[in-house]
Amino acid sequence: MSMKEKKMLMIVCDGLSDRPVKEFDRKTPLQVARKPAMDAVARHGMCGVMDVIAPGVIPGSDTAHLALFGYDPYTAYSGRGPIEAAGAGLEVRKGDVAFRCNFATVDPTLVVTDRRAGRIKSGTDELAKALSGLMIEDVEVLFKEGSEHRGALLFRGPGLDPRVTDADPHHEGKVLESRGLVPEAEKTARVLNEFVRMSHRLLDSSRVNVERKSAGLPPANIVLPRGAGGLGDLESMPSMYGTKCAAVAGVTLVKGLCRLVGMDVVDVPGATGGLDTDYKAKGDAALRALESYDLVFMNIKASDIAGHDGDFRLKVQVIENIDSMLANMLDDMHEDVVVVLTADHSTPVSVRDHSADPVPVAISGGGARIDHVKEFDEMSVASGALGRIRGRDLMPIVMGVADRAKKFGA
Amino acid sequence: MSMKEKKMLMIVCDGLSDRPVKEFDRKTPLQVARKPAMDAVARHGMCGVMDVIAPGVIPGSDTAHLALFGYDPYTAYSGRGPIEAAGAGLEVRKGDVAFRCNFATVDPTLVVTDRRAGRIKSGTDELAKALSGLMIEDVEVLFKEGSEHRGALLFRGPGLDPRVTDADPHHEGKVLESRGLVPEAEKTARVLNEFVRMSHRLLDSSRVNVERKSAGLPPANIVLPRGAGGLGDLESMPSMYGTKCAAVAGVTLVKGLCRLVGMDVVDVPGATGGLDTDYKAKGDAALRALESYDLVFMNIKASDIAGHDGDFRLKVQVIENIDSMLANMLDDMHEDVVVVLTADHSTPVSVRDHSADPVPVAISGGGARIDHVKEFDEMSVASGALGRIRGRDLMPIVMGVADRAKKFGA
Repeated sequence: MSMKEKKMLMIVCDGLSDRPVKEFDRKTPLQVARKPAMDAVARHGMCGVMDVIAPGVIPGSDTAHLALFGYDPYTAYSGRGPIEAAGAGLEVRKGDVAFRCNFATVDPTLVVTDRRAGRIKSGTDELAKALSGLMIEDVEVLFKEGSEHRGALLFRGPGLDPRVTDADPHHEGKVLESRGLVPEAEKTARVLNEFVRMSHRLLDSSRVNVERKSAGLPPANIVLPRGAGGLGDLESMPSMYGTKCAAVAGVTLVKGLCRLVGMDVVDVPGATGGLDTDYKAKGDAALRALESYDLVFMNIKASDIAGHDGDFRLKVQVIENIDSMLANMLDDMHEDVVVVLTADHSTPVSVRDHSADPVPVAISGGGARIDHVKEFDEMSVASGALGRIRGRDLMPIVMGVADRAKKFGA
Repeated sequence: MSMKEKKMLMIVCDGLSDRPVKEFDRKTPLQVARKPAMDAVARHGMCGVMDVIAPGVIPGSDTAHLALFGYDPYTAYSGRGPIEAAGAGLEVRKGDVAFRCNFATVDPTLVVTDRRAGRIKSGTDELAKALSGLMIEDVEVLFKEGSEHRGALLFRGPGLDPRVTDADPHHEGKVLESRGLVPEAEKTARVLNEFVRMSHRLLDSSRVNVERKSAGLPPANIVLPRGAGGLGDLESMPSMYGTKCAAVAGVTLVKGLCRLVGMDVVDVPGATGGLDTDYKAKGDAALRALESYDLVFMNIKASDIAGHDGDFRLKVQVIENIDSMLANMLDDMHEDVVVVLTADHSTPVSVRDHSADPVPVAISGGGARIDHVKEFDEMSVASGALGRIRGRDLMPIVMGVADRAKKFGA
């Protein structure tokens, strides 16, 4: 890193922003919470509102993070498969096709009787090993178990195409034959169908399932893939921005996405992605990562959970917890670090789900301008110097503030 | 001009905007300078911030002005050659291919021994005449000297294509053979190579160089072209907007660009493009041009120079000089004139170079709305009625305010 280029810390509070709630004086949780550290970022920097995808589009956590990382979510994104695969720890390369999977129970005629194999708790690592490393035609098969009945499947070989239908019937019933939606994807569908049949043959007689059957539990005797996807034109963040990037996140989906875009995911014991997450451990891990990385990204999931729960007071409490973590981090941080504070989408307690409302954003440090905004909430930030931006523009703006932008022209 | 349509004055203060500087109470030069005339434009009109190219992209002066004139800089721009040629006074037409050139010194084996021919100060006009008017195959050659060792070359004829490599080796060493980067450009490369060889034959024995050699100076005995470019899809501004356009600028690059887009460039004695420029002469020239043109564009370079020098106090002084000029102009101007005040990019004194920070913009007069913004600086304008816009949108907005916009639909 040259003297001039600044380090960057990007904190995404999942589902943070909200709508006014009548019973709370028509305020949002951000307006009610005591959050001196968040306000300090706003006060020492510049603020704005952000349509993470586009005005009136409700972002998913996956598409939102792609946009926040500077990608066009409409072209970079092709199905959940690759994100789940990367989240499970498989390396996804260009040309690979990946799937999310369930371990399920089928009868001898391949009719699904339990789509989650009795929410199987253990043994899937052994089942996954039996499936990984297979060759079907000239296609290499990689498989990794996830939590409970979940797993990720990856095909690697020539001539693959993710445009195939699911083998998973999505409810009890006959296992589906996958079809190619375009002629180029026929090989992939053929290999997928063969894989599903092989998974039944290999798993049904496995030690794990023999034991499950004798214990009266539904055997995990087939794999049902869905959500086929490939990498598209995804250039890695380190290559796009010329930066070393690390991620601190608790949720598998976000971790997977971070790996997909080329971030190193820091393992933080106690970072659960839940309400019980160890905020201090996450903050400390991010600060340590800042020593050796140019850009450190943090996702804190708890605010989204409080929104989904529809619990205003809980969301206020989560915001205050995040603020305490941030206060400690700001105390120990070099003042030259560019700090970005925002959300991936709104999860209003009155909606109990993601909404299309734009999110607040504040950028301080580095070359950030200092506007008149003193508080970090949905309303205060709207008259700030950033104006109204799109999620995709955030990372270029941050690179500019960190003196890492590129010149176009003379 | 119908009764309804307003005249337009667009003042671009080069590199004007900045970042907060700690030693100056975390203010920018615009926030520190006394600038009642600029503030009056803000107070009587509407303000906003502008990403001249796009968020997080550092604009060059060339791409920035293309965007400010309403062009897509990514498609309109094809190399510096045409801009330099137009700046030197050559008329560039569609299909032409133009180059920036150096007069240089080569030994008899065509190895460059001085890329600037000893920074030759005089005689290049005579050398240029010897090269201009040549025919190579069916291609007409036009050549014009620039300042010192610089010059511009233009090819006009059928089947030309700018996608060729430079003949200029960019350092001492063997003169390069140009190659076509695509089959369509092979003819252009062939003609260019022949031109370079001819330039050596014609110049080596010229009167100017015989004299230089006898005076012990390196002869300007070859021309080294680089930066091939064509006009792309550039429609002229008069045709695009139905307006007569004039430009008042001191810098060759900006003058060239203005000529390229079809503006008449007004010659102003004393407009140097430097810190010593004659502000009053420029202001008077712009006012006179407003009598016969619909749109008058002004570029004032001094603010950019102060930014590159990293001199906060100098930048404040330049801003106050520009403000005095503007005050005189506003005094003498019809109140119906739409005044646009902005910058082509930021050149923060802390960066000493262009940055990606957006620029302030104010539009007053004509149908401009009047917002609450009272001061023209990076922070105050951000909450104005224009919001955050892109450079390419400025000219259409200005045309709208001047009642010159076109209707789409019924």
